[in-house]
Amino acid sequence: MTPAPFTSDLTAQLFGEEEAAAILSDQAFIRHMVTVEAAFARASAKVGLVAQADADTLSARLAQMKIAPQALGEGMASAGVPVPALVAILREDCGRDAQALHWGATSQDIVDCAHVLQWRALLNLLEGRLTALLDRMRVQSDLHASTIMAGRTRSQIATPITLGLRIATWAQPLIALEAELPRLRAQLLRVQFGGASGAGSAVGDKVEVLSAALAQALGLTQGACWQLDRSGPQALGAWLVRLTAALGKLARDLIIAGRTEIAEMRAGQGGGSSTMPQKSNPVGAEAIITLAHYSAALQPLLAQAAMPMEERDGAVWALEWLALPQMGMAASASLRHAGALIETLQADLSQLTAHLQAGQGAVMAEAASFALARHMTRAEAGAHVKNALAKARETGKPLWQVFQDDAALGALEDWSACLAPESARPAAEAMRGRIWAARADPDARDTHAETSPQRRETDG
Amino acid sequence: MTPAPFTSDLTAQLFGEEEAAAILSDQAFIRHMVTVEAAFARASAKVGLVAQADADTLSARLAQMKIAPQALGEGMASAGVPVPALVAILREDCGRDAQALHWGATSQDIVDCAHVLQWRALLNLLEGRLTALLDRMRVQSDLHASTIMAGRTRSQIATPITLGLRIATWAQPLIALEAELPRLRAQLLRVQFGGASGAGSAVGDKVEVLSAALAQALGLTQGACWQLDRSGPQALGAWLVRLTAALGKLARDLIIAGRTEIAEMRAGQGGGSSTMPQKSNPVGAEAIITLAHYSAALQPLLAQAAMPMEERDGAVWALEWLALPQMGMAASASLRHAGALIETLQADLSQLTAHLQAGQGAVMAEAASFALARHMTRAEAGAHVKNALAKARETGKPLWQVFQDDAALGALEDWSACLAPESARPAAEAMRGRIWAARADPDARDTHAETSPQRRETDG
Amino acid sequence: MTPAPFTSDLTAQLFGEEEAAAILSDQAFIRHMVTVEAAFARASAKVGLVAQADADTLSARLAQMKIAPQALGEGMASAGVPVPALVAILREDCGRDAQALHWGATSQDIVDCAHVLQWRALLNLLEGRLTALLDRMRVQSDLHASTIMAGRTRSQIATPITLGLRIATWAQPLIALEAELPRLRAQLLRVQFGGASGAGSAVGDKVEVLSAALAQALGLTQGACWQLDRSGPQALGAWLVRLTAALGKLARDLIIAGRTEIAEMRAGQGGGSSTMPQKSNPVGAEAIITLAHYSAALQPLLAQAAMPMEERDGAVWALEWLALPQMGMAASASLRHAGALIETLQADLSQLTAHLQAGQGAVMAEAASFALARHMTRAEAGAHVKNALAKARETGKPLWQVFQDDAALGALEDWSACLAPESARPAAEAMRGRIWAARADPDARDTHAETSPQRRETDG
Amino acid sequence: MTPAPFTSDLTAQLFGEEEAAAILSDQAFIRHMVTVEAAFARASAKVGLVAQADADTLSARLAQMKIAPQALGEGMASAGVPVPALVAILREDCGRDAQALHWGATSQDIVDCAHVLQWRALLNLLEGRLTALLDRMRVQSDLHASTIMAGRTRSQIATPITLGLRIATWAQPLIALEAELPRLRAQLLRVQFGGASGAGSAVGDKVEVLSAALAQALGLTQGACWQLDRSGPQALGAWLVRLTAALGKLARDLIIAGRTEIAEMRAGQGGGSSTMPQKSNPVGAEAIITLAHYSAALQPLLAQAAMPMEERDGAVWALEWLALPQMGMAASASLRHAGALIETLQADLSQLTAHLQAGQGAVMAEAASFALARHMTRAEAGAHVKNALAKARETGKPLWQVFQDDAALGALEDWSACLAPESARPAAEAMRGRIWAARADPDARDTHAETSPQRRETDG
Repeated sequence: MTPAPFTSDLTAQLFGEEEAAAILSDQAFIRHMVTVEAAFARASAKVGLVAQADADTLSARLAQMKIAPQALGEGMASAGVPVPALVAILREDCGRDAQALHWGATSQDIVDCAHVLQWRALLNLLEGRLTALLDRMRVQSDLHASTIMAGRTRSQIATPITLGLRIATWAQPLIALEAELPRLRAQLLRVQFGGASGAGSAVGDKVEVLSAALAQALGLTQGACWQLDRSGPQALGAWLVRLTAALGKLARDLIIAGRTEIAEMRAGQGGGSSTMPQKSNPVGAEAIITLAHYSAALQPLLAQAAMPMEERDGAVWALEWLALPQMGMAASASLRHAGALIETLQADLSQLTAHLQAGQGAVMAEAASFALARHMTRAEAGAHVKNALAKARETGKPLWQVFQDDAALGALEDWSACLAPESARPAAEAMRGRIWAARADPDARDTHAETSPQRRETDG
Repeated sequence: MTPAPFTSDLTAQLFGEEEAAAILSDQAFIRHMVTVEAAFARASAKVGLVAQADADTLSARLAQMKIAPQALGEGMASAGVPVPALVAILREDCGRDAQALHWGATSQDIVDCAHVLQWRALLNLLEGRLTALLDRMRVQSDLHASTIMAGRTRSQIATPITLGLRIATWAQPLIALEAELPRLRAQLLRVQFGGASGAGSAVGDKVEVLSAALAQALGLTQGACWQLDRSGPQALGAWLVRLTAALGKLARDLIIAGRTEIAEMRAGQGGGSSTMPQKSNPVGAEAIITLAHYSAALQPLLAQAAMPMEERDGAVWALEWLALPQMGMAASASLRHAGALIETLQADLSQLTAHLQAGQGAVMAEAASFALARHMTRAEAGAHVKNALAKARETGKPLWQVFQDDAALGALEDWSACLAPESARPAAEAMRGRIWAARADPDARDTHAETSPQRRETDG
Repeated sequence: MTPAPFTSDLTAQLFGEEEAAAILSDQAFIRHMVTVEAAFARASAKVGLVAQADADTLSARLAQMKIAPQALGEGMASAGVPVPALVAILREDCGRDAQALHWGATSQDIVDCAHVLQWRALLNLLEGRLTALLDRMRVQSDLHASTIMAGRTRSQIATPITLGLRIATWAQPLIALEAELPRLRAQLLRVQFGGASGAGSAVGDKVEVLSAALAQALGLTQGACWQLDRSGPQALGAWLVRLTAALGKLARDLIIAGRTEIAEMRAGQGGGSSTMPQKSNPVGAEAIITLAHYSAALQPLLAQAAMPMEERDGAVWALEWLALPQMGMAASASLRHAGALIETLQADLSQLTAHLQAGQGAVMAEAASFALARHMTRAEAGAHVKNALAKARETGKPLWQVFQDDAALGALEDWSACLAPESARPAAEAMRGRIWAARADPDARDTHAETSPQRRETDG
Repeated sequence: MTPAPFTSDLTAQLFGEEEAAAILSDQAFIRHMVTVEAAFARASAKVGLVAQADADTLSARLAQMKIAPQALGEGMASAGVPVPALVAILREDCGRDAQALHWGATSQDIVDCAHVLQWRALLNLLEGRLTALLDRMRVQSDLHASTIMAGRTRSQIATPITLGLRIATWAQPLIALEAELPRLRAQLLRVQFGGASGAGSAVGDKVEVLSAALAQALGLTQGACWQLDRSGPQALGAWLVRLTAALGKLARDLIIAGRTEIAEMRAGQGGGSSTMPQKSNPVGAEAIITLAHYSAALQPLLAQAAMPMEERDGAVWALEWLALPQMGMAASASLRHAGALIETLQADLSQLTAHLQAGQGAVMAEAASFALARHMTRAEAGAHVKNALAKARETGKPLWQVFQDDAALGALEDWSACLAPESARPAAEAMRGRIWAARADPDARDTHAETSPQRRETDG
């Protein structure tokens, strides 16, 4: 439909997301590159490579400059990176002040650092959305703590669960992702400085102090040049793919639960059809699944990017440029859709109850089996349950009543209580509690945050 | 770097291509949808579903209408397809004339047909580029029919080939793709009409004639509704991936041949570096490789799209919308880069010769082995060659001279002629000839074209 | 669970398939390599490269030889291809007779030709299965030509279809794949001869006649060396992925239709659960989906294999060895499972009817809309249908009755007939007919077969 | 070539690895399942669900049992999981003692726990290999700390680096992976207990204590049921893909450096060719690249597996069974090959020097540029360097001499020292030092190990 599904006027409102689009825009990226050049000049001055006055003047001028993406398009095409064209424009604009510009840096230093600034802003956005989504999920999960429903395994009605537990299982991988953010930031938000071949040859014995000064100026972690170690981008990609997949699970469940014949849950507004007024298409949930498949398909490209030839490999480095911003957009759009779905999620209690009673209450067959096994062997118990299920089907009597009416088995248990779906609640509540307990309480989360103070700063 | 690598101002000149961008734009797609609605109205009139006059008036009005992508963005987001919003706009604009609009069609009919029109235009563009590229490759291949060079297998100098043959092998998969175009068009450029659930329920016994009339109006092949049979999109995707991969092979070879230490070939302008004036980065070839990896990564999404649930599945159908336009852009941009590379391809004869002579002419070891085997067992021949190679390394004498100087072996052959790399020319020429022979001569190609007359019509 | 899911004792009966396993075994592959070496010797004699007597003796000896895979394992590991070790064993075994062995061939000639023989056998197997499956689908589709059911789009009940049509749509992509087999064979079953660097340097002016003789000896199509043109393997892979995806669609539908709450269809035996005796897990359908995802994931590897460096690239060539046999096994196992599902497919008519009546017959809302539009504008018709649906929900009356009881609209149509789901049958039958018409009748199929006579020969 | 590339007799020595094969074998997996059943029985007794005596007897009997994979193959095929068949065999064998068996557990509990035990053993194996590889890399990196060579960016000679730094950059992503192991284990090695629908319904209020007891019995971390949260398998997959990609980078570099025309490094034994005795094919490095591509292609399957429908989804769960063991084998085989390459890595100093001097020492152009910029503007400096390069090419004089001989520039610097490639050593050493510093010293690594004591225990 369009080669730019995340940004085109036709599709951006479905597949894209505005705030992420701003963070991942050409404009924002160019601004980050200029920010890096300015920080690099100041860092170079700090370690004595260029004059402090030159760096200050340059830095001040750069802060004022606005460079349109169009101005770099041709240079990007001829050099395969935007930096030579950018540096040429900055040089021309700054004239004599440009002496301090880009001293000993290479294109990759600028591009990788600019990406880090972009990713930092993206993670801040996604964290905010993720946290808000989890907060809402928690509310819905608590609200439905006692809402018994039929669990389904392999598309068959299995044993009872609660809707509160189901929602908690949706949250579970998201809780893990939220908790991993400090670690991901530590791995990703590192300064990149290597110079031409990653050996810092142009700055000689200043390589460490320069890198440290640059890190400080950009609010990044100091460390070795990582131009050939793509652990950071790979970790970011893995986190994003896990995020979209986790939301994809939720979306698949909502589509099934919202089917006409099942109708246990309703979420989102429902897309209309031009000629079938009865329909309410699960547009948001579908988009989440689409984006989850799409994002996952891009992941192998990050492994290719981690196999560069020698000191720099233009062919595979660029794969990160193609894959990661799209994965970021997919994540942000999915969070937006998921937020709307969870916000509007409603359960239809009568449908939930109807499915619990389907098949004369076969959902309690496992419970019957274990109840009987307290009095006989497992094999005997299993045989009794099979018989009882058959009799229930034949007679239309509920399973518990078949047992109660059975001369031999009726007195063994209080079958009405024992085979009430509500009996599954305590265990489900225990499970639900454990899942949510894994989410750090607000204070604990603040503690995480302290290890990465930059996340609250204004980016971009 | 950007979530829209094919279209953003910063990157479009590197990764995108203008004509494909126009063909694959939102505007073009919307125009195709309107064209389909107009054709559908005329077809409905032709088979008596709506009044001819209504259809004519409507069709005339639609021909005038211009709908901005922005006008559909919100509707796309709420319905997950652009058609309900489009139909609403058309209805409002056409008022009473709209009675004949979208009668019995479903969103998928309009979107799939519009895509077919878009793909037709895309294939026409790509065919033109591909044919031109092959024509140029042929010229270069002929020019270098006698340019002997060292063939490399598994990165080692192996036996001699000609540069003309190397270029022919680049062309070989492209020749196959060119020849398959009529077949691909036959598979892809089919009308899609199924109505709500693909059963044509709203048009009853008119389903076949309506579909035929629509096919005729759009210049497409008639056939069964294919809303659940994604053979066409999958075949298009497979063709595009093979195209970008075939160009990727050429690009990998050019990067290696253009390495500083090898320097056998030079192609393209070479991207500059801000601080290393000696460098000439293989930007175009790198971009081709990037795009080949990228396009291949998207291919599994088309298999997902071929596994829709029931009569329509919004979650996987949309994967085609995301994948195919990008694959089309990648193909078009790759052809553009490849065209520039082949246009400017130059061989450095002295470097080619130098590598043929490397290792005292070890590139002729195989030839020596077979020459000797005419006179002794293969094992004996092999042993002699190993010894001679060792002696050549030791003494610095060329391999042929080692044999010529050998008391026992010197007289067996005219070693100077037998081990001249030029001796590989006849076989290489034969191989080269066979590859190019597979390309239909112009007349034959016109014949193919006749089976798909629509390909020359003006699209979009 | 196992690194060899298709062959391990634990999982082969689920994910694998015996006949394909035999065709794709180490043993069969080695036998094919030996067959190729024998054919190569005979072809070399035919064109005068080696003595006819030598070739005959050698060929006869090779026909007797049995080489265990273990014997080649170490050689495979040290050379990265099995041929040097194979040739060494053959040489040692054949002694003096080995003079005619492997004259001018390279490892890739042997391995690629052996693969072609393997693929030929595989395609024969798959074609047999595919044809049988389609025959069975046809029977089921005919049987259910009049079985009305609710079509679902985007997981919502939409408009009526027939089960016969649903089954036909499952068959539709398979019919295309069946029809493409002659073309696929023509593209794939080509002789490969290029010698060391693909330039046939060791055989000089015999390159064409030798290749032709080898092609004849192996029953393959003659043509240029394709060591760098991986169109054939890519086309095979694309066909296999489309096959598993087409079966995946069928499997997804069966899982949904077999859900406890829907229960419209039943297919396969149903996997048991140790503690929930009521369950009947859709094991076969799940395995098909698993295999479809798996096969699709491997497809990008074939594009990588189509981007070899220079004359041979061991790193990417081997990707075909890893991907294609697994894709072949996945296809064969999926066909086996699908065969069992279609064989046992049963519809539950009462459930089908129940869902047609769900929502007071909202499945006929589209039909009502078009019926009314014959008497008023589309907008007015739409408004009436919305009102009628609301009234039906309120009162519990079927939709047709709401219209019939309506003072203004009751007389416009015979609502009981007009809104009977059965009214959808004629159009559905027309659609169904067109899909099956695309399948060549037996005679036509025989005609295809004639163009590829080798397909009936006994392979391997 | 084979559908079982990691285990078949023909290919296992190239693509597989023995110790990983043992860990990932059917036998080992079945043994793990039995171990889990035994631990489950003991845990059930501990919390009072079954009699302690029963559990002890059962546990003792299970410890003795040997179950052949063949015995489970049919049951696996009919149930889609091996557990029902396993439990049936165990029940039959244990007779009356089986009362305590599998009480409240579901198939997924057993399979997931057994996988965790398998992964634990796999990680122990890989860690040992990885640590040994890094130790060897460190030795080589130190050995070549002063070996100056030409760095290449985008396939062009750029600026000098040291071979010691190059090797350190190979190690860099591996160091990160080594350091992440404790974290990965914490995420992955968790007990899985959920019962039928993940709600623990059969064990009621014992769900937490039972899970804790099971965790203790298996030496795993306690926590919520993760049957729907596939964060662990995804994290394992991401780690494995990063590992094979990191080794792939090293392999790509070795293939280039070992090309006939470059010949700067030699590693591994070199695969022979039957007819070209001069060749030394980079078999091990090629296999590493093949495996890296392969492993990366499987990664998206793990995202699919993270999108299960409802409480269990047989179709996508099984994707982990197909992907992860193969990824584990690929990692282990790649480590084996990489170990052999690093062990035998040798540099050819004369070739390294030759390439540093290529183009009259253009590798020092950047250095010249920065040296001049200390005396003039960057633009002026750049112009001087371009001229000097041209003059060097014309005259054949080395670049440093062109500057020294220049009337205006000769006195500005000691050009011979300033443009000696050795001048790059200090910065390269600083970079190298930082990379290796990131590797925890032995004590620090032991500290990590303490957080996961189970890793040293003998597994399976």
